[in-house]
Amino acid sequence: MSLVVIGSIALDNIETPFGKVEKVVGGAAPFACLAASYFFNKVKVVGIIGGDFPKSELTLWKEHNIDIEGLQIAEDRKNFFWSGKYHNDMNNRDTLETGLNVLEDFDPIIPAAYQDCEYLLLANLTPTTQQTAIDRLKTRPKLIVLDTMNFWMDIALDDLLATLKSVDVLTINDAEARQLSGEFSLVKAASKILQMGPKYLIIKKGEHGALLFGEDKIFSAPALPLANVFDPTGAGDTFAGGFIGYLAKVGTVNFSNMKNAVIFGSALASFCVEKFGTEKLKNLTQKEIAARVEEFVQLSSFQI
Amino acid sequence: MSLVVIGSIALDNIETPFGKVEKVVGGAAPFACLAASYFFNKVKVVGIIGGDFPKSELTLWKEHNIDIEGLQIAEDRKNFFWSGKYHNDMNNRDTLETGLNVLEDFDPIIPAAYQDCEYLLLANLTPTTQQTAIDRLKTRPKLIVLDTMNFWMDIALDDLLATLKSVDVLTINDAEARQLSGEFSLVKAASKILQMGPKYLIIKKGEHGALLFGEDKIFSAPALPLANVFDPTGAGDTFAGGFIGYLAKVGTVNFSNMKNAVIFGSALASFCVEKFGTEKLKNLTQKEIAARVEEFVQLSSFQI
Repeated sequence: MSLVVIGSIALDNIETPFGKVEKVVGGAAPFACLAASYFFNKVKVVGIIGGDFPKSELTLWKEHNIDIEGLQIAEDRKNFFWSGKYHNDMNNRDTLETGLNVLEDFDPIIPAAYQDCEYLLLANLTPTTQQTAIDRLKTRPKLIVLDTMNFWMDIALDDLLATLKSVDVLTINDAEARQLSGEFSLVKAASKILQMGPKYLIIKKGEHGALLFGEDKIFSAPALPLANVFDPTGAGDTFAGGFIGYLAKVGTVNFSNMKNAVIFGSALASFCVEKFGTEKLKNLTQKEIAARVEEFVQLSSFQI
Repeated sequence: MSLVVIGSIALDNIETPFGKVEKVVGGAAPFACLAASYFFNKVKVVGIIGGDFPKSELTLWKEHNIDIEGLQIAEDRKNFFWSGKYHNDMNNRDTLETGLNVLEDFDPIIPAAYQDCEYLLLANLTPTTQQTAIDRLKTRPKLIVLDTMNFWMDIALDDLLATLKSVDVLTINDAEARQLSGEFSLVKAASKILQMGPKYLIIKKGEHGALLFGEDKIFSAPALPLANVFDPTGAGDTFAGGFIGYLAKVGTVNFSNMKNAVIFGSALASFCVEKFGTEKLKNLTQKEIAARVEEFVQLSSFQI
């Protein structure tokens, strides 16, 4: 039984009001895999890297028990590259440059050893590639979580709508929920989106927390108020990885466990933004994670 | 022992995507007094109305046990008037017309019978009028809550800063907290504002809930996700009234009770926005309020 993560693997140039870094590891899969690895020790990655991707990162993943058999290495090609600059409010960013490179013709090959997948995270990628990954698993996973973004709603909406029919959980942000549904009210948006296929919807609201919809229930998770958000890149991917990693660990998918999964995902995301790229996700301890989760409990509990 | 509310009393013309109403009762005090009256039966109002203000509203307030001895009635003058139109997203509005009228030279006279004030809500008004009300109470109330808005930060910042030194709790929205502190991070904003005088700060975030800061703690309250927000006018005033009304009822001011007060205030505000003006606040039952508060409990509780 394993948790398979498929997603982009990038080299990022990032500029925030706090500094500037070049060619740090980014993309959806690294954040998601590292986050999931803190809860579950059978995380397996599917993705593609170019010859310029640092091999030291693969060593790190192995140390985190992340299986890289599904990682395609195109030694003679360049890695997927993204460059962006955050505004002073850290809520908005401009993409300066995108180089798809190896990602352009990425075919998600699933190794035979990955056919034991029970938990599948389709991290951000083209909807057709996400669909291909689903189709190549001989047994339907117990839980399929799909993360996507406005970009695919803009240029590949029909593909996205088709893939949504095959998944259990969709994670998007509030602006994307409004775009996908055409509804401003998030309650109405959720109601429409839950008729598109997913049984559960998570709306990520950044500094305002997250909403989980499903089973005719709503759960509102707080975000930890932070004095400094150093680099928001990958927070959503980290959330998704922590979310599905926690569910794989507990092994039972129900609303109660999903609420906790949202809290654990949020806790991991709150670490992620404290440093550039995946830096902060490399060496967390279970004690640090438990203390951070306790902060969420303290933050939101009341007794009436 | 009483709860005194001082604030504007308006007649509003409101247009939202759901409809249009003319000369409905508005202003900070009516929303706050009605909300507080559901928790505490010694609410006393200080304010001014013109000859065109409907007397039926005074009958309603009396039915809610709201003492109107401190209400000045200028029969030969026109009431404070506000006219506004909400955008389709309901988060932004344009003020079309403001007629200060009786409010222009309002002098907050405190009746002798109001000197038993233990809980004082300084609802939205000029900071100097709020200060005058404090100065005219011979015994300092046990708890002073001040609500204000960006308008006073724009045109009377020094007066506001002076008045802040005398209060216990400040309630403002997130944009106002950023404006007042010059900090984008709400944690840093709160830290600066808590050095300006108030011991507690409540940052109202509309559809994203509210944050309570004080005693080196933070509490994050959710907002009830609503399918329809009919008219947001007065939601913040209702919140403040429910908040202080609940505290007056329990009688002990500490962080734990304040957390509950934020939930009860949020619950009342969630009713407020369901109809135009104060309409929905006129005939709530304790059973309805308890059921709404239970929705907040369900919405935000998790067991880790």
